[in-house]
Amino acid sequence: MPSYRIVIIGAGNVATHLAKACQGAGHQILAICSRNIENVQLLAAAISCECLALDRLEHLPEADFYLISTSDSAISTIVEHWPAHCKKGIVAHTAGSIPLGILSSMQSRVGVIYPLQTFSKERNVDFQKIPCFVEGDSTETEAQLMALAQSITQLVQPLSSEQRKVLHIAAVFACNFVNHLYDIAVGIAQEQGINPDWLQPLIEETAAKVANLSPRAAQTGPAVRGDQTVLHKQSEMLEHKPELQQLYQLLSQSIYQKFHP
Amino acid sequence: MPSYRIVIIGAGNVATHLAKACQGAGHQILAICSRNIENVQLLAAAISCECLALDRLEHLPEADFYLISTSDSAISTIVEHWPAHCKKGIVAHTAGSIPLGILSSMQSRVGVIYPLQTFSKERNVDFQKIPCFVEGDSTETEAQLMALAQSITQLVQPLSSEQRKVLHIAAVFACNFVNHLYDIAVGIAQEQGINPDWLQPLIEETAAKVANLSPRAAQTGPAVRGDQTVLHKQSEMLEHKPELQQLYQLLSQSIYQKFHP
Repeated sequence: MPSYRIVIIGAGNVATHLAKACQGAGHQILAICSRNIENVQLLAAAISCECLALDRLEHLPEADFYLISTSDSAISTIVEHWPAHCKKGIVAHTAGSIPLGILSSMQSRVGVIYPLQTFSKERNVDFQKIPCFVEGDSTETEAQLMALAQSITQLVQPLSSEQRKVLHIAAVFACNFVNHLYDIAVGIAQEQGINPDWLQPLIEETAAKVANLSPRAAQTGPAVRGDQTVLHKQSEMLEHKPELQQLYQLLSQSIYQKFHP
Repeated sequence: MPSYRIVIIGAGNVATHLAKACQGAGHQILAICSRNIENVQLLAAAISCECLALDRLEHLPEADFYLISTSDSAISTIVEHWPAHCKKGIVAHTAGSIPLGILSSMQSRVGVIYPLQTFSKERNVDFQKIPCFVEGDSTETEAQLMALAQSITQLVQPLSSEQRKVLHIAAVFACNFVNHLYDIAVGIAQEQGINPDWLQPLIEETAAKVANLSPRAAQTGPAVRGDQTVLHKQSEMLEHKPELQQLYQLLSQSIYQKFHP
């Protein structure tokens, strides 16, 4: 397995896990660069590499890969100020919803490595099991990004910007919105003095179930049964929380209509 | 461990798993009774016990426990036609949202065993790890129902009707609505020819994450980051599906407001 020289731009959740995965695969992290000085110092200390402020791009070392995991809006600024001496390396961003085209004015070889996972700094993940979707500005660039991705995970797949955008919105429903529903459920339980830990086996089984059954076949609850009495009573119980009541009604209706067209 | 004589009323998802768990714990399933003749014949054959139609309650055998896992609306009819010769056993329903009071006119000892899990016939579950919530009409009834519950699961907890109702609505958010979001995500991916299996590691990590982090701390995605560009673009992408777009906007707003009050 070749060892690449890598610079990470960003020090948030994705950057942190990506940097650790690259280091774990035997690559050399030359520097980590971010506008959040506190974050970047912590991460650079953990990785034992140089750290740089994002407004000092001219001090970036020469590398094989520059991986940009900043907030989506920061990418344009980086593109604009990309230093001439870094143009030999491949530049790739890691954002689901941003097309490859955002990097096209860089006069570098550019691409995307999109890891489809939810990352929090406080939680370790096994990067080897994270699907990574790769796109390059040429067959050769794509092959080199595939090689890098394959060194950190077993699940690598080429994917166009157009399809990545679709996958990202699917992920927002399957992860971000789902987690928000967990938060609502925990809040409902806690408000009445019920230990929310009791919900965890249900949460995990609901997720594990759809590995074998389609979500359509796995659906349970009052809305799929068409149990109007329970639907009505539960909606009434949320009357003091109009926002939750609206979510309850909209989601119940959406399930009901799918199964009772 | 004592062996009880048990009659199961209902042959749906909950009844099926409950009957198997009771039999697995060494209890004797005397009969299974349901209005759905096809379901009840299948289940009775799997359990090797007698099967009865729901309109023949007068033929029920005498038992220690009668467990009612029918549709919520069928319980009242059962209560009304409960035969005199069955009044020595304890009658318990398994519904989250129905108070114990629905059984109070039965002139039997009555209670509730509510297993907090999503059950589909097509999927096996380890009942020993399912939290069960118990309520009885007296300390003695409750103790006997606790003993029965403890014979089939390690996680037994007394819970009032009032709190059970709250736990059930929390479960609707954490399971039924979550599964519906999985279905939407799978649909979005499939529509663009993307294999929805790529979403499974994300789905499972999102669920596993909240065993250690609170959902509040685990939240990721464009809404919590306040990334208006992505929020706007993704909402636009759903323009041809007004129902999904409405869900997208409501859930994104709800997350955004929680983190940017």
